[in-house]
Amino acid sequence: MRSRPASPIEIRLTLPPWVDHFLENSPPCRADEGKMRLAISLARENVIRGTGGPFGAAVFREPGHELVSIGVNGVERLNNSVAHAEMMAIMAAEARRGYYTLRIPAGEHYELFTSCEPCAMCLGAVLWSGLTRLVCGAGRQDALALGFEEGPVFPESYRYLEDREVKIVRGLLAGEARAVLTLYQERSGRIYNR
Amino acid sequence: MRSRPASPIEIRLTLPPWVDHFLENSPPCRADEGKMRLAISLARENVIRGTGGPFGAAVFREPGHELVSIGVNGVERLNNSVAHAEMMAIMAAEARRGYYTLRIPAGEHYELFTSCEPCAMCLGAVLWSGLTRLVCGAGRQDALALGFEEGPVFPESYRYLEDREVKIVRGLLAGEARAVLTLYQERSGRIYNR
Repeated sequence: MRSRPASPIEIRLTLPPWVDHFLENSPPCRADEGKMRLAISLARENVIRGTGGPFGAAVFREPGHELVSIGVNGVERLNNSVAHAEMMAIMAAEARRGYYTLRIPAGEHYELFTSCEPCAMCLGAVLWSGLTRLVCGAGRQDALALGFEEGPVFPESYRYLEDREVKIVRGLLAGEARAVLTLYQERSGRIYNR
Repeated sequence: MRSRPASPIEIRLTLPPWVDHFLENSPPCRADEGKMRLAISLARENVIRGTGGPFGAAVFREPGHELVSIGVNGVERLNNSVAHAEMMAIMAAEARRGYYTLRIPAGEHYELFTSCEPCAMCLGAVLWSGLTRLVCGAGRQDALALGFEEGPVFPESYRYLEDREVKIVRGLLAGEARAVLTLYQERSGRIYNR
């Protein structure tokens, strides 16, 4: 007897409903600190609203500081282990641009701000997306301290991206970003990939 | 003047329409070779139909050889750099199970067969998905020879997964898998992440 073939499934990825109102009321972001605060605020709101893990991200188009897309962790909400904040923001940015890469031959470029250093999957996704700058808040160790896995990311992983013209900044507003991880822990949030 | 907030976007990921008919007519898969041939056939069909890059993947539930989900590369078709064959198969398997992990406490487990060794993103995704076995056809070098990037994957990346109870087999039917990469090259398929 043969096994029944798997019916193809349409996968839908959405952001939680509170995001619309949240963005309407968020201040404009021009400097790196403002952009990182947006990513951290998204992470915090995701914890407070109970819609996912303590991670937020945002993609900006430069020059011009245009907020192109945002992402929050939706692994449990969407029953999808791929739905990390960075993945959501990257896919939404590409959907908005209507193209599979954010790499623009000249002039403008896209930057990702994430409240915590990306896991192995998200770091790989940064490369494929054509982002040219990655700015991180909390560090891998902060996520690990909470019990979250980060996967096979090594110092040479970052160098690999830098060698391919991705500028990387780590530890921006790390204290504020860590506070969201602590908040999640205090609320006994689930460590879904332990 | 503030930048306009990004409207949240629903992201939809689908398989190409030919998949349904293809699965109805594919032979049952019991042994590893049969399962790999399915992944390779999906990759080949994706090239022939012009629906994406030369990569295919399938998730099986064991014991029982149940085909749970499949994936083909859809980066260009979906304008989504995340839509690698492995990612599609993993997300579809989780959607089918209705849960964010494929790790089952006891007894059954899920395996991923992929026509080519996963890139950094997909290798990370394997870990988060809870798959307990990864079987690969063609190698990283084969993809690189074509001009495809594979990202920051190192020997210790594989060890990292093995240390977390993911069994890994590489090079199964590598010749047949490589032939699909060659076919793609002959048809001047786009190297979308060069």
